[in-house]
Amino acid sequence: MTDFKAPIDDILFSLRHVAQAESLAEWDDDIASDILTHFGQFAEGVLAPLNESGDRQGARLENGKVRMPDGFGDAFAQLAGDGWQGLTAPEEHGGMGVSPLVAAGVSEVFSGANHSLQMVCNLVPGAISTLLKFGSPAQCDHWLPKLISGQALSTMCLTEPGAGSDLSAIRTKATRQGDGWHIDGEKIFISGGDQDLSEDILHLVLARSGTAEDGIRGLSLFLCQKQPAAVVSRIEEKMGLHASPTCQMVFTDAQAELIGEEGAGLQAMFTVMNHARLDVALQGVAHAARAAQLSAEYAAERKQGRKPDGAPALLSDHADVQRMLDSQAALAIGARAMCHLTLVEIERQSSAPLLEILTALCKVFGSEAGTQAADHGMQIMGGYGYLSEYGVEQVWRDARICAIYEGANGIHTRALVTRGLRAEGADAFDDLVCRLSGDQTPPALENWRTIRMQLQTLKDPTPYARRYYEMMSNLLQQAVWLRIRAVAQHHPDPAYIERLATHVLTQGEAPA
Amino acid sequence: MTDFKAPIDDILFSLRHVAQAESLAEWDDDIASDILTHFGQFAEGVLAPLNESGDRQGARLENGKVRMPDGFGDAFAQLAGDGWQGLTAPEEHGGMGVSPLVAAGVSEVFSGANHSLQMVCNLVPGAISTLLKFGSPAQCDHWLPKLISGQALSTMCLTEPGAGSDLSAIRTKATRQGDGWHIDGEKIFISGGDQDLSEDILHLVLARSGTAEDGIRGLSLFLCQKQPAAVVSRIEEKMGLHASPTCQMVFTDAQAELIGEEGAGLQAMFTVMNHARLDVALQGVAHAARAAQLSAEYAAERKQGRKPDGAPALLSDHADVQRMLDSQAALAIGARAMCHLTLVEIERQSSAPLLEILTALCKVFGSEAGTQAADHGMQIMGGYGYLSEYGVEQVWRDARICAIYEGANGIHTRALVTRGLRAEGADAFDDLVCRLSGDQTPPALENWRTIRMQLQTLKDPTPYARRYYEMMSNLLQQAVWLRIRAVAQHHPDPAYIERLATHVLTQGEAPA
Repeated sequence: MTDFKAPIDDILFSLRHVAQAESLAEWDDDIASDILTHFGQFAEGVLAPLNESGDRQGARLENGKVRMPDGFGDAFAQLAGDGWQGLTAPEEHGGMGVSPLVAAGVSEVFSGANHSLQMVCNLVPGAISTLLKFGSPAQCDHWLPKLISGQALSTMCLTEPGAGSDLSAIRTKATRQGDGWHIDGEKIFISGGDQDLSEDILHLVLARSGTAEDGIRGLSLFLCQKQPAAVVSRIEEKMGLHASPTCQMVFTDAQAELIGEEGAGLQAMFTVMNHARLDVALQGVAHAARAAQLSAEYAAERKQGRKPDGAPALLSDHADVQRMLDSQAALAIGARAMCHLTLVEIERQSSAPLLEILTALCKVFGSEAGTQAADHGMQIMGGYGYLSEYGVEQVWRDARICAIYEGANGIHTRALVTRGLRAEGADAFDDLVCRLSGDQTPPALENWRTIRMQLQTLKDPTPYARRYYEMMSNLLQQAVWLRIRAVAQHHPDPAYIERLATHVLTQGEAPA
Repeated sequence: MTDFKAPIDDILFSLRHVAQAESLAEWDDDIASDILTHFGQFAEGVLAPLNESGDRQGARLENGKVRMPDGFGDAFAQLAGDGWQGLTAPEEHGGMGVSPLVAAGVSEVFSGANHSLQMVCNLVPGAISTLLKFGSPAQCDHWLPKLISGQALSTMCLTEPGAGSDLSAIRTKATRQGDGWHIDGEKIFISGGDQDLSEDILHLVLARSGTAEDGIRGLSLFLCQKQPAAVVSRIEEKMGLHASPTCQMVFTDAQAELIGEEGAGLQAMFTVMNHARLDVALQGVAHAARAAQLSAEYAAERKQGRKPDGAPALLSDHADVQRMLDSQAALAIGARAMCHLTLVEIERQSSAPLLEILTALCKVFGSEAGTQAADHGMQIMGGYGYLSEYGVEQVWRDARICAIYEGANGIHTRALVTRGLRAEGADAFDDLVCRLSGDQTPPALENWRTIRMQLQTLKDPTPYARRYYEMMSNLLQQAVWLRIRAVAQHHPDPAYIERLATHVLTQGEAPA
């Protein structure tokens, strides 16, 4: 298996030229370049070498405590010691105060090197945002330094048996006792519910402070410190991400503090979740880029058959293999561009309906880009792609969760075909597409406009959710690639970018 | 996880009414029904319960011998004891002499219950055909009884490091010594290269009896009995099929007998391979059907959210989930119909170019139907789909190899866009499509005809291999579903078949 290479040049090209982060006041090009370069070296040297061994060994539950795979503790100590856990936290709290755009690049590289460890570490930025937005000064003073230094990691305790996509069914109970709260209930699918990396853990727990009849308005968000009353009762056997402990947790009269207003828990939780959704999209990008790297290096070395002139051919000389290699690279670059553009729109404080549409498109397209590129990788490598030692099958297994967690993709496509049809968001999306496309017209634009109007007349457009998503993401990809092509001269290999743009923009066209 | 149910009703519907096996002189409806029902019970009771434990335990190499997972030995003893290994072998040799159409149903059920064990057992029918076609009377007398009784299993030793899709690069050497041959070389990816199920093993070895310059004309096929000179040097760690030992074998001066003519090894090997390709397509069908079964039962029980009227909803009440459930079922039924129709065309001795097209379409579509349906299954089940205990992730991992082995799918799509463009095959395909469609016209027909003509004018159509395959398989699926809809009244649930037909025939249409 080829060593992991952090795609720093591609990330910087995407941020600077495609997403035009340079247009933002906060952008500091030297800092961005320095940070990404340093993190890339750290990821290549420290994080990536643990990826395969972590998959093989897995996290284990021993006597009620979770043990991470060998080497993960040291890697985290270095990560925290170098300050990476406080990357986006404000400098006044001891963080680096770096732009979310740079953090997006760091997060992608982290996931590409070691998705499992990234899972356990990377709920912290969302927890920090939640504290800054909803926490009391005392809560911030207590938790921010711990999270920023790596003394504590954090979790997001939402899902319960019977309450996954539908959070209104949450039954975990929060009871006021004196000036504090106590939590009782069971949560499942809690990433990093326990681990032996950090001394402390901050659980953000969504629990019912009101009655069942209150639905989601009876839910509040709580801070719950690691304690004997919050225990891991099992960790799940999963298809992938073996080094990331997915925990079932039992809270029995566990002490907790309310954060934010009573009954406004879901709203507060969305602060974590919105960050997490784009982060998941970037996990998909990371897997797509890693699959593309593994496959390209394999295909450029492996001899297979002959060229038309009889000379020995490389695998990459075969047209169908080249098609898959191009597709992988285009998925990674195109999905990354979509995420970076969305992050820039967030920084520009674009309208909430537009941001909701873009976040949904990034989540679904990014997550599927990861599995699709890894699937191509297995096909390119043939029998070797099916073997563990070539690495691409792990990429697929790890990537596959991205379409499921942080809102299953079907939840997001449904949002696109319901709320996303409303004029405010859809018109803004239309404007964005036209802006990205410059003086060209994406081939899919007119059809999308027609279908959008047709769907608006339907009482129940949800059966068309997937198809509408496909049209919309295809249109956005076309617009993104028109933009990418327009700035190709800034990429280290403009001709390659040009070829990939042609690959995307002529998909589905008749051959002749 | 839901127990495996053999889809006997669906298989009989497909054979009898869709593929019209009843029109063949050899078809005996009572025998077909009896055999499938009996094998279904055996698969449900004996084979399927070992599928998950076999995946977990895996096959192991211990002191140069392969040990199969617990229970596999007993299951094989029952399988062989009941005569299933001689299902299609002629009665005069001790077989059951059953039609290949019935055998296709049995093979699908076997793969759905336990793909790993099927892999190890099901190279025997191809070996029997090869012996009957190319073997000397002495070779047949020696090996047929062993294979039919289960005293011996067989392997197919083709691939070498550096010679996978390109068999002309084979270097394993066969040397004549007296009246026999000796084999030296290394083979990889040999399923069942060793196992502890059968007393004896017959290796069919493709080896170079001529010089490297002779290319594929220097290859001959050999019978090589299990012996100390043919050893397993390692078994591979794979993504799936853990209970099927994928062996690296070293032949060192191993005794062998030539079968068929010297230099005609590839041709003889194609007898095994053609059978194997349709068998792989049916493995895909089996996985699609199993994924559909697992998902449908899960979705019908799992509560999720609410219906528009506020009542608690089941997962299957959600439109996007229903779309995926329908897609899974349609993939299984449609791919199965394609395979059965092809087998009927083989029995009717249709032209070789048509059979080559149909076999390629079955191999690619069937293998991808398996992974696609399993992928939908993971998505339908959400987080549970990613957990080992719900079973569908194993379906995906096991199914994924089907697109790779027996000719990577790209090899088959290339054949379709090169040899498959010639008039003899393509015209016969056009006729078949029209025949299946009855008095209707498949929506994709005209476009396919146009593209076919355009591609014929290109010097190198191979870059369009995938797209052409997609058009062609889509067209064949439409024709198949027009046929299925026309005979829906013979299915136990005609309304369901009608709905699936609509699902397939309106794919990609505008919603309004």
